[in-house]
Amino acid sequence: MNRYDYVDLKYTPSHDELIAEYYLEPAKGVRLEKACAHIAAESSIGTWTKISTMSPQIAHKLKPHVYSIKKGFGARSGIAKIAYNPELFEAGNMPEILSSIAGNIFGMKDVENLKLLDIHFPPNIMKKFKGPKYGIEGVRKLLKVKTRPLCGTIVKPKVGLNEEQHARVAYEAWMGGLDVVKDDENLSSMSFNKFDKRIALTLKLRDKAEKETGEKKMYMANVTAETDEMKRRADYIKKCGGEYFMIDILTVGWSGLQTMRNYDDKLNMVIHAHRAMHGALTRNPRHGISMMTLAKCARLIGVDQLHIGTAAVGKMYGSPDEELEIEHEIEEHAFHPVHGSHTLEQEWHGIKPVLVVASGGLHAGMTQKLIKIMGKNIVAQYGGGVHWHPRGTRYGAMGVRQAIDAATAGIPLEEYAKTHTELREAIEKFGVPK
Amino acid sequence: MNRYDYVDLKYTPSHDELIAEYYLEPAKGVRLEKACAHIAAESSIGTWTKISTMSPQIAHKLKPHVYSIKKGFGARSGIAKIAYNPELFEAGNMPEILSSIAGNIFGMKDVENLKLLDIHFPPNIMKKFKGPKYGIEGVRKLLKVKTRPLCGTIVKPKVGLNEEQHARVAYEAWMGGLDVVKDDENLSSMSFNKFDKRIALTLKLRDKAEKETGEKKMYMANVTAETDEMKRRADYIKKCGGEYFMIDILTVGWSGLQTMRNYDDKLNMVIHAHRAMHGALTRNPRHGISMMTLAKCARLIGVDQLHIGTAAVGKMYGSPDEELEIEHEIEEHAFHPVHGSHTLEQEWHGIKPVLVVASGGLHAGMTQKLIKIMGKNIVAQYGGGVHWHPRGTRYGAMGVRQAIDAATAGIPLEEYAKTHTELREAIEKFGVPK
Repeated sequence: MNRYDYVDLKYTPSHDELIAEYYLEPAKGVRLEKACAHIAAESSIGTWTKISTMSPQIAHKLKPHVYSIKKGFGARSGIAKIAYNPELFEAGNMPEILSSIAGNIFGMKDVENLKLLDIHFPPNIMKKFKGPKYGIEGVRKLLKVKTRPLCGTIVKPKVGLNEEQHARVAYEAWMGGLDVVKDDENLSSMSFNKFDKRIALTLKLRDKAEKETGEKKMYMANVTAETDEMKRRADYIKKCGGEYFMIDILTVGWSGLQTMRNYDDKLNMVIHAHRAMHGALTRNPRHGISMMTLAKCARLIGVDQLHIGTAAVGKMYGSPDEELEIEHEIEEHAFHPVHGSHTLEQEWHGIKPVLVVASGGLHAGMTQKLIKIMGKNIVAQYGGGVHWHPRGTRYGAMGVRQAIDAATAGIPLEEYAKTHTELREAIEKFGVPK
Repeated sequence: MNRYDYVDLKYTPSHDELIAEYYLEPAKGVRLEKACAHIAAESSIGTWTKISTMSPQIAHKLKPHVYSIKKGFGARSGIAKIAYNPELFEAGNMPEILSSIAGNIFGMKDVENLKLLDIHFPPNIMKKFKGPKYGIEGVRKLLKVKTRPLCGTIVKPKVGLNEEQHARVAYEAWMGGLDVVKDDENLSSMSFNKFDKRIALTLKLRDKAEKETGEKKMYMANVTAETDEMKRRADYIKKCGGEYFMIDILTVGWSGLQTMRNYDDKLNMVIHAHRAMHGALTRNPRHGISMMTLAKCARLIGVDQLHIGTAAVGKMYGSPDEELEIEHEIEEHAFHPVHGSHTLEQEWHGIKPVLVVASGGLHAGMTQKLIKIMGKNIVAQYGGGVHWHPRGTRYGAMGVRQAIDAATAGIPLEEYAKTHTELREAIEKFGVPK
């Protein structure tokens, strides 16, 4: 089989094929079409030379089709779409799917740069994944918050407090009006803050805060570890009355995440996904794997909440357009790309929507802008934006909750601040971005 | 705490600190020193604003020190070394360690590009990891091959053969003289090639090949999947008499890999690590995570064999200098950097050495060059370079084994080919690169 045979610009993918979309820059001296063909080959059935063990039957049945090659934004670059026979994959095995279409190809000499922009999952592959157990509706029902954005904080400093201090900061945040409190991504079980003790103490104060406020309060405890230990930690949270566990999905990896989603069929807990390390893959527009791709994989496996950024409102790099597209993709039942988008059509076939999490450098003054851009179906998380308050976490939290209430009611923050001291203090400190 | 406090160029790290080395390009308008300080903060105890929950005691005890900032290769770029108090980490928890020092920082607005070049692991963190069970010596003992390079193939096409065809191709490769046969990275359990059936049939023919050749033969079966299913698959291989399992370590992820290494204490099998997807992280010299870092993490967790490239001899992109440095790092008991290297000093404290795997576009004619560059402590794997032979896999394998024997004996391939038909055929087809 000639490797150019992989390119067929007249080919129409069938509805059961998996489609991958790539941005690529061929290596010097390599034609774009040839590079596309080599990507298709290396991600499926091909190798660098003709082999005696390949048969025309196998090639005919399984070879993928590069069916679209458009000009990319870089010099000599292209955007290619490749349709793959679903039998090339083990449905339900995310590591295997990625080893194929996001594996060796990133190391090929034939390309200088390569970015996986999106994957369209066909129904028969999709149905082997579980998707979120709760999703947006389930989380809202659990928290008894119908329409407003959920608000929360991350216990800060990221690492450094002992168990009692940690639980106390969480309590103060809940008492100030926040719905959820989470561990930071690098807090697991430290010498001075052991997992089990922290969970027990924090959930005890969660109960106290619920009683005192009459509101549902959630603690999103970070179980990030080796898989069996993650199971044990999730069991322990459940035993202490917790309803959430949190995973750093990229440093843990897809296999461990799938295992925890399966295990959750026993626990029935909400899964909160932190994306630490994503920027190593997603940030370069010319190389790596897009956040859209990672977000879709996470929804398919079944996280209930996922960090996607703050639409550039906060401290992290981000493209508002891209993040909104990701929000639409993972919060809706289908995604229909608009003109100019590099995101593929996707029906979600009953896989539940994921609640997006906005986090990273947020303060109360940003709330209205954030909601205006991202809508109300978010968890807005403020770290330093809560704990900055000189009188303590509770007062920072009050300012944030006031901002959420004001923004939900459509009242300008500056207006609401006239009668709400803590919001006024936050605005005096940080301002209100336009 | 002023965030600039993280920089102290007079600081000398203590021997128990973890050190991370980064290449970075600050964002426009951000000073290099400030960007370094922000990386140190975001990867440990800091956030974007002063907070009431931080105490001078915590800051004093736990804050990391940026103790070296040198000029990088790019404009306005730098190379920074940061020393971290080991209490910032959960020793033995690789996902947590990476969530700290390879997590959020890749998404910070303050940097345009950021690459984690290396991690120096201190003894107290190192000793919580298991390291390889077999390592180089263990693998050589198992295979009864004392000094020559091990040679092997990947069953090709990558995906497409049924179970019987797969087992037959493996048998032919062993009969041609190869030591090891492996699944390709995207072969797991397919509709037309089910895992269990493939394993049973292939190991049966492995036994036959051992009997007929009098040599030890190994089958490296790919268990890549969700963690519990990986355990089941490894159990099944063991039950069928297999001695190896293979994992796509990056698409599986660190958590699943650690789980399988722990589980292997029961199975006592050799772990072969494939690095599919690494290029998405490693390839860009200015952003992501270096292959050196990934290789060290894999050794620490405990893979016995790891793909590191072919020193640019084969089809994959690679820098020979970098790959040789990685080889030294993971095959030796200590690494002492030479001048100009961006790799940190590392003692391995009894953690066993990993056997490196050279794979990707190799053919028999490349063998001498490959061994000259990479030495004899390698597994040289030829895919298309075995199955290309028009008379079939066995003859391609014979050519490869002849090349290995010649190179080991120091006989030029062209010389040896005069009396060895299959090597001659391979050289006639592909040549001998200078």
